[in-house]
Amino acid sequence: MINLTIWNEFVHEKIHDEAKEIYPNGIHTALKEGLSNEGFMIRTATLDQPEHGLSDEVLNSTDVLIWWGHMAHDRVSDDITQKVAKRVQQGMGLVVLHSAHFSKPFKVLMGTSCDLKWREAGEQEIIWNVNPTHPISKNIDAKIILEHEEMYGEFFDIPEPDELIFISNFEGGEVFRSGCTFKRGEGKIFYFRPGHETYPTYYNQEILKVIANGVRWTHGVHTLKPEFGKTEPTRTLKVSGVLV
Amino acid sequence: MINLTIWNEFVHEKIHDEAKEIYPNGIHTALKEGLSNEGFMIRTATLDQPEHGLSDEVLNSTDVLIWWGHMAHDRVSDDITQKVAKRVQQGMGLVVLHSAHFSKPFKVLMGTSCDLKWREAGEQEIIWNVNPTHPISKNIDAKIILEHEEMYGEFFDIPEPDELIFISNFEGGEVFRSGCTFKRGEGKIFYFRPGHETYPTYYNQEILKVIANGVRWTHGVHTLKPEFGKTEPTRTLKVSGVLV
Amino acid sequence: MINLTIWNEFVHEKIHDEAKEIYPNGIHTALKEGLSNEGFMIRTATLDQPEHGLSDEVLNSTDVLIWWGHMAHDRVSDDITQKVAKRVQQGMGLVVLHSAHFSKPFKVLMGTSCDLKWREAGEQEIIWNVNPTHPISKNIDAKIILEHEEMYGEFFDIPEPDELIFISNFEGGEVFRSGCTFKRGEGKIFYFRPGHETYPTYYNQEILKVIANGVRWTHGVHTLKPEFGKTEPTRTLKVSGVLV
Amino acid sequence: MINLTIWNEFVHEKIHDEAKEIYPNGIHTALKEGLSNEGFMIRTATLDQPEHGLSDEVLNSTDVLIWWGHMAHDRVSDDITQKVAKRVQQGMGLVVLHSAHFSKPFKVLMGTSCDLKWREAGEQEIIWNVNPTHPISKNIDAKIILEHEEMYGEFFDIPEPDELIFISNFEGGEVFRSGCTFKRGEGKIFYFRPGHETYPTYYNQEILKVIANGVRWTHGVHTLKPEFGKTEPTRTLKVSGVLV
Repeated sequence: MINLTIWNEFVHEKIHDEAKEIYPNGIHTALKEGLSNEGFMIRTATLDQPEHGLSDEVLNSTDVLIWWGHMAHDRVSDDITQKVAKRVQQGMGLVVLHSAHFSKPFKVLMGTSCDLKWREAGEQEIIWNVNPTHPISKNIDAKIILEHEEMYGEFFDIPEPDELIFISNFEGGEVFRSGCTFKRGEGKIFYFRPGHETYPTYYNQEILKVIANGVRWTHGVHTLKPEFGKTEPTRTLKVSGVLV
Repeated sequence: MINLTIWNEFVHEKIHDEAKEIYPNGIHTALKEGLSNEGFMIRTATLDQPEHGLSDEVLNSTDVLIWWGHMAHDRVSDDITQKVAKRVQQGMGLVVLHSAHFSKPFKVLMGTSCDLKWREAGEQEIIWNVNPTHPISKNIDAKIILEHEEMYGEFFDIPEPDELIFISNFEGGEVFRSGCTFKRGEGKIFYFRPGHETYPTYYNQEILKVIANGVRWTHGVHTLKPEFGKTEPTRTLKVSGVLV
Repeated sequence: MINLTIWNEFVHEKIHDEAKEIYPNGIHTALKEGLSNEGFMIRTATLDQPEHGLSDEVLNSTDVLIWWGHMAHDRVSDDITQKVAKRVQQGMGLVVLHSAHFSKPFKVLMGTSCDLKWREAGEQEIIWNVNPTHPISKNIDAKIILEHEEMYGEFFDIPEPDELIFISNFEGGEVFRSGCTFKRGEGKIFYFRPGHETYPTYYNQEILKVIANGVRWTHGVHTLKPEFGKTEPTRTLKVSGVLV
Repeated sequence: MINLTIWNEFVHEKIHDEAKEIYPNGIHTALKEGLSNEGFMIRTATLDQPEHGLSDEVLNSTDVLIWWGHMAHDRVSDDITQKVAKRVQQGMGLVVLHSAHFSKPFKVLMGTSCDLKWREAGEQEIIWNVNPTHPISKNIDAKIILEHEEMYGEFFDIPEPDELIFISNFEGGEVFRSGCTFKRGEGKIFYFRPGHETYPTYYNQEILKVIANGVRWTHGVHTLKPEFGKTEPTRTLKVSGVLV
């Protein structure tokens, strides 16, 4: 069973009426409920908790971490940021949602600005599947239509994704690489675009299916740790440090 | 003309006899001389200089930066590390040589541990070209033989390279992805493995040709900066922030 | 100087009024004129010529071939198809335009159906650059707007491109990977989507700039041919065919 | 349960003593026995059978096909070649072993010559894992040592693999991309290098584990077929085919 921790900064939903109305108990609670039949063991954690709810004990027992943040990225401590990044590098899966493109852990793992174009106009987003045989696409239709979403537009300043799975078309004319996978060390990362705090995106069953597939895919499959450092040769060497 | 800055920590060559003998004026000077006929405008910079020789003025007028470091990675300041990484993200090319796989700027740009296996036994390395039509392979033979080198072995903990250009075979039995390219923001990065301080690798004409090709390839070609932030729609929207 | 051959099936422009009006002398002639200031040595070839205008002499002296076809793909002989594919594998660049996604040479080089969704409704296409530092993006803006084009939609059944450069947004809601690069053997391939025969796309200066950049990028840079077949060892072997 | 068909040309093992001694009932039989505890439903098929043992009925009920061939590639009919390629494009997994790099179905699916360097000298091969978190690497150690194998060397003329999983080091000095994945249409392909007919490679438990992982990974996971062809818009268009 996958131990999933859903992290949410949980600020908008306390102070902004629009967000509060849609996610009265926070995005993390909506996601927890939406994923409740997927067979995951789910905990939640939020910014205001001690260590942002991500103590060593929690992190070390987390197989996959979902991250949602937006207006309070800079309130996440550098210490927790480094711990999260390191756990990913050592095998924890990471599902990065929407505005968490600008979260500290994602930026540290990407090595780029992660910047993009945006517009908050409640326009239609159509998410197209361009990798139908990827495990994250399992049981997902050719397209998902969200009637109202924030727009994110290219150029999205990320490293070339290992795999591109979804591309969005926005009513106003933009496109966006909305589903991208990356590997960092032993950890797998899935970035998935939708989910502005003022739209009911995380109640959409197709979106929840993609997130569940993303959790399963980022969950590590390997059992043998890579080894590093000084190594003996397999074959006898003819030379030994002798310079020409 | 490409403005090339060659950065070297320049420590081994001052304190270790073996390195001093081979590179009496430092690896940076050997590289500068070796690349003198490539048509670059070349400066050098070293760790002990103020700001490690990488003032804003130098960085801002550098098109491509070569980086060599080994025993003094931790003496590179975080401030300069961040400035170098940012300049790469904004378009400066970066050629990362040998033990600089563990340099601070490279690790910041990769988001991984950059760890690997190693052995210092002066064994033979054969570098094979697996991407013969890449600009970095221009005029490079199918293989380059180095009679004596330090061994680096897989697993090399880097993100999946955008392009794999060289793979090394070591006499003791290991392999290594020795030539890898990455993009970060507007900047291009070329990692090239060879060049331990106790072997005359940077006098090898084939190795110098690869480095020169790497400098040319990492040199940015684009002229139009990506734009980010709030954006007006190209098409008229039917909706405007209205929730369902 | 690059020897460029522009191949066009040249059928629509002879028999359909809409196409004839826009390209009275054929798409190949419009492209030849549009690219006349790029410094290429340009020839054209069409389906009705002997050997479709692609004799061994023409193919062997062609550095880069542009291919446009649509309604007469099946009239291209298998013999010429194989010759074109082989020349690409041996280093000739190939720029595949629009409906040539279904051309015989492209399908042979891809190994997939190359199928897609389509709609001919004269809708707006906005082509976004998602790889601004690629040579094909040189001097190209963040987006190119075509007021009227045929729609192509995902899933586009091609192998994962080596590099994704452009993504299109169509007014009706679709997206498409409109600029893709591939390598096959020593040859480079650039697929570029726009250019339906009933719209004046190939008079658009931005589109012409992309095609010119594509011609330059697919032009081979290497000089040393890969070698294949039986090979002597570089190192002495301890064994020689002895079974355990 | 995965329906696996193991195809073997089965010629060497009938006419060459060395091969007969090691694989008296053919490579296909050795593989069938070696994979008997993996939970697959296994059939075999060989060149000499009617339709090479690959009737429509067999192909249509095969989830994953393993292919081994060497001296009789040209005796595989073009008809069966096309059927196999099409089934892969429509979702059948394909595991291509060793000298099947030159098999007709693999070449059709790759679009390249698939040529390489080789040497038959019974030298040592060490296969290194460069993608330890890939499902095909599950429970596989950092390296697999084969004391005697045929050498395959780069440049291996394949398209850039989607994923590189194994790289081999040969005693004589070469390297080879020994484990590569590709997608073609709805089908997944895994090329795995080892297995010359005169060495007992397919009795090696590590090699068998990799092949079993490859069978599982190439087995399709998706359930929804991509749709192609004429498509209605999701959004109302402002124009309808009107030219400027």
